[in-house]
Amino acid sequence: MRVTTSFPLGTLRDTPSEAEIISHQLLLKGGYIRRINSGIYAYMPIMLRVIEKISTIIEKELYKNDCSKLLLPQLHPADLWKKSERWEGYTAGEGIMFNLKDRQGKEFGLAPTHEEVITKIASEIINSYKQLPLCFYQIQTKFRDEIRPRFGLMRSREFIMKDGYSFHSSKEDLSSFYEKMGKAYENIFKNCGLDAVGVEADSGAIGGAASKEFMVTAAAGEDSILFTESGSYAANIEKAVSLPSKAVPFENFKDEYLKTPNQKSIFDICQKNNLDPSQVVKVVIFVAKFNDKSEVPILTCIRGDQNINEIKLFNFINKKFKSNLIHLNIVEDNALIEKNLINFPLGYIGPDLSDETINKNSNWNKSWIRIADYSASSLPSFVSGGNKLNFHKVFQTFSFIERQFLISDIRNAKKGDCISLENNEELQEKRGIEIGHIFQLGQKYSEKLNAKFSDKDGKLKNLWMGCYGIGVTRIAQAAIEQHHDENGISWPIQISPFEVLIIPTNLKDPNQKKLTEDIYKEFKSKKIDVLLDDRDDRAGVKFKDADLIGIPFQIIIGRDSINKEVEFLCRSSKRKIKVASKNLLETFISESKVMYNENSSS
Amino acid sequence: MRVTTSFPLGTLRDTPSEAEIISHQLLLKGGYIRRINSGIYAYMPIMLRVIEKISTIIEKELYKNDCSKLLLPQLHPADLWKKSERWEGYTAGEGIMFNLKDRQGKEFGLAPTHEEVITKIASEIINSYKQLPLCFYQIQTKFRDEIRPRFGLMRSREFIMKDGYSFHSSKEDLSSFYEKMGKAYENIFKNCGLDAVGVEADSGAIGGAASKEFMVTAAAGEDSILFTESGSYAANIEKAVSLPSKAVPFENFKDEYLKTPNQKSIFDICQKNNLDPSQVVKVVIFVAKFNDKSEVPILTCIRGDQNINEIKLFNFINKKFKSNLIHLNIVEDNALIEKNLINFPLGYIGPDLSDETINKNSNWNKSWIRIADYSASSLPSFVSGGNKLNFHKVFQTFSFIERQFLISDIRNAKKGDCISLENNEELQEKRGIEIGHIFQLGQKYSEKLNAKFSDKDGKLKNLWMGCYGIGVTRIAQAAIEQHHDENGISWPIQISPFEVLIIPTNLKDPNQKKLTEDIYKEFKSKKIDVLLDDRDDRAGVKFKDADLIGIPFQIIIGRDSINKEVEFLCRSSKRKIKVASKNLLETFISESKVMYNENSSS
Repeated sequence: MRVTTSFPLGTLRDTPSEAEIISHQLLLKGGYIRRINSGIYAYMPIMLRVIEKISTIIEKELYKNDCSKLLLPQLHPADLWKKSERWEGYTAGEGIMFNLKDRQGKEFGLAPTHEEVITKIASEIINSYKQLPLCFYQIQTKFRDEIRPRFGLMRSREFIMKDGYSFHSSKEDLSSFYEKMGKAYENIFKNCGLDAVGVEADSGAIGGAASKEFMVTAAAGEDSILFTESGSYAANIEKAVSLPSKAVPFENFKDEYLKTPNQKSIFDICQKNNLDPSQVVKVVIFVAKFNDKSEVPILTCIRGDQNINEIKLFNFINKKFKSNLIHLNIVEDNALIEKNLINFPLGYIGPDLSDETINKNSNWNKSWIRIADYSASSLPSFVSGGNKLNFHKVFQTFSFIERQFLISDIRNAKKGDCISLENNEELQEKRGIEIGHIFQLGQKYSEKLNAKFSDKDGKLKNLWMGCYGIGVTRIAQAAIEQHHDENGISWPIQISPFEVLIIPTNLKDPNQKKLTEDIYKEFKSKKIDVLLDDRDDRAGVKFKDADLIGIPFQIIIGRDSINKEVEFLCRSSKRKIKVASKNLLETFISESKVMYNENSSS
Repeated sequence: MRVTTSFPLGTLRDTPSEAEIISHQLLLKGGYIRRINSGIYAYMPIMLRVIEKISTIIEKELYKNDCSKLLLPQLHPADLWKKSERWEGYTAGEGIMFNLKDRQGKEFGLAPTHEEVITKIASEIINSYKQLPLCFYQIQTKFRDEIRPRFGLMRSREFIMKDGYSFHSSKEDLSSFYEKMGKAYENIFKNCGLDAVGVEADSGAIGGAASKEFMVTAAAGEDSILFTESGSYAANIEKAVSLPSKAVPFENFKDEYLKTPNQKSIFDICQKNNLDPSQVVKVVIFVAKFNDKSEVPILTCIRGDQNINEIKLFNFINKKFKSNLIHLNIVEDNALIEKNLINFPLGYIGPDLSDETINKNSNWNKSWIRIADYSASSLPSFVSGGNKLNFHKVFQTFSFIERQFLISDIRNAKKGDCISLENNEELQEKRGIEIGHIFQLGQKYSEKLNAKFSDKDGKLKNLWMGCYGIGVTRIAQAAIEQHHDENGISWPIQISPFEVLIIPTNLKDPNQKKLTEDIYKEFKSKKIDVLLDDRDDRAGVKFKDADLIGIPFQIIIGRDSINKEVEFLCRSSKRKIKVASKNLLETFISESKVMYNENSSS
């Protein structure tokens, strides 16, 4: 294509101030995207080519794995999401689904994900185990009403995803397809020129048994990955399991109560009473709000040097109750406390807090659900809140407390923790950008939406389901995080908008002009993805734009045209060589082949 | 692809009762689409292939015309649409734009069209006339909150469109690009295997100077096309201009007033008083509601045998007033009359109705805007309402009425009318499905959104704009309206999901199985778009499905496998021939070439 007639570039001179991270800055500065509103971007022609290349790589790999491409609607009727009991959680409060009413007043959501719609379709078209397994996928714009849209396409409100859904007659078949899909994902990311790693992950609001995330490691990543050097373990911090460091042995004080005026924080108590945080149990209060509108107060206990993992806690509570958990909010706000609690000395709460602290007129359940993390429940003795202002208390293990506790892992694993008693490798931490996520959903959706098949024995059974997502626009941006320098983007050739850019430095020179046209036509005739910067601009401007937009190879046509010579430049290595124009095509083919092979999966 | 592993068919046995027209029935029955909600469909894998083929044809043609493909957001901030003064008209009352508020309470519309967004972008990236012309387009799902969704993909609430927008430095350049785009459209429709016709059209809510619609003629079409046999004229009825038939000469009655008890209709008056409808002037009352909230009563006059064209009337009023016209409603509802009018004898209203009939307490403007169609204004004398109950009156031409009239063409042209005084060809009528629409927008949007360029003389000027739409999903359905028989669809090969379908009748026969695999592999290796129906089903079921889904060629592998012979069937002509398997590929290539050439544009 030619820049002047059909491929305007639209690069910017200055770095837009709105962009915090380099990939976002380069997307804007390179004219790849344009902001229309907070978290809403237009994909300019140069960006769409990147998106299409990524999509093609995905499609090829999924085709090999017998997945069928379709296209589902973006407007979803509320009824369907009410059947799966996700409407409330996705639209009320913190819910991220944009929603609207049509002219008849019927409710619709703008789809962030498609489990409901595809399960409805599966329930209609799948009758027999003979049709299984089946996997459908689509590549489509999704919507999320993000609380804080930021980082360009990383956390935007409109973004392109590939989402796939598989259907199986057994748990085992789902499990083996899930593994196959994991391999396919590895190939896809490799074929996109990305260095990605698969980590254990939380299944979140999607639900289901197992799930794995694929992360591009990058400092700008919003996720934390904990991993061992040996590769024996890797998980998202949301999900990671570890052993906390050993607690410092605790010698009991003489008195049961400790006077601790104005010592509300672990730090203060430890400092003033010569304690180690691992000798203290921290109590954190939550209120859990369920789909059936019930509200349950939750009292959690964890060792003072550890932190509650709210995702683990959410999942644990959600499993224990029949109704779906919609929100889990920490209780530290005075208005909330005054309305629902009495004699509640915030900062001095202990595990044995009386149920009578719950206000009888409150809409909360009238007894505490008490949950202790292993780090707390395993302590032989410890200090915790005395349940009266300015007092802490010494406890002789949790078993002495006359209250019922649920014991679970609700703790954040962290850097330096060991994996297990058997494996004493220490966890390390990296930042990552999530670009893919696969889930074993099990029968959650098929049960709620009545999607059944008749098995070999003629019995109707619920379908087994998996789901598989890839952030297409995120891949593009993550690739920039991994591939850029001080001058701009340096695309992996696989997903670059073009493979090669021709830059004539002076089109007024008839030799240059002729050579440019000859080379352009030759490359086009070989179906090479070539862009010709035929703008009537200074060479400096063109060079700067070329480095900024990051096409992997540049052909610079200058004064040596008279000798039929050009310069051939590799964007990433900055290596520049002189090539006779008659050898140019050959040079490009061999150099690009090397670059393709460096990253390809097969 | 293979039906069992990656391409499930999902055909239905019965014709779904919800579908009124044949193309909608066949899309559902053939398993092409599945209904998720009123006017909202999933495109199944077989449908998505049709959509992709149509998209590729469009892209190839637009590439030749230097158009750049991009992708714009679907969520549009209200602010942008308020700048163009379309927000109100598109969201209030009859407005068809779905809209919502985000978590911050900001208003957004779900885009049915993208003039605002692309003009904003153009205003940012276009500086100089040197960059012009430029044309951007996208292929994307659009949304319309239809008052009455129906006919499947014909009038659905989610549908796929190609929409393009061009920018020019002069009216002349716009005009010549518009002509070029018209030619490109003709090529596209021809290359899709469609018989389409371009007709003059109304610019509707998009606005602008000239516009042309492309119609597929089909009985199920929602539009009426008026045209002359010679091809000298073709227009959508919404826009068509003609001469009405001559009025029957009228001899005055003796009295000025006619007693016409209970004669509220033209039919009754004519019958009881021996009049011809062309001797009567019908008065129809409207109320026009504007963007600035003002409401203006409109009194229209037309010859009794003719009908008001509300689109012409709307456009005429919209041009006359500064504020944008949002709604034009006919006034015949008693509640509305009682609230706004006094002494208003509905059914007996004449052109000279007093302004005092408008209630002083009403929010309507206090004088009538009177508009007479040429058919009425040109009458030498006529009968019309007497403005008192049970009386009509004889008028001596409009010029005798002491009221100001705006004279315009606000009449529906109809079958049998002549085009003009010079050309006495009679108009004929056909039904059509609109599949494309091109507009010369002029400077409407660039002015409102401040999109300027600096011209050769260094002066900042408003950009000249055109816009160009194609209904991608509509093309698919319109093609079925033109190409089907009693057994199902018969796709034009250009947009068929596959070029050829292989049907082994009995895969348990090892000869058949081997021959089937050999043929499938041979076709695949030649990059032919082939589907293999490898289901373990009765041959009858497969034949029925094959005719229903309508792939243009079928290869039937049966008992003659033993002699290496198969049957080769053409879906549209039903011609079936025996072919030796060694000649099969060659036969297919030559037959399909003929089919491609029948319709191709070049």
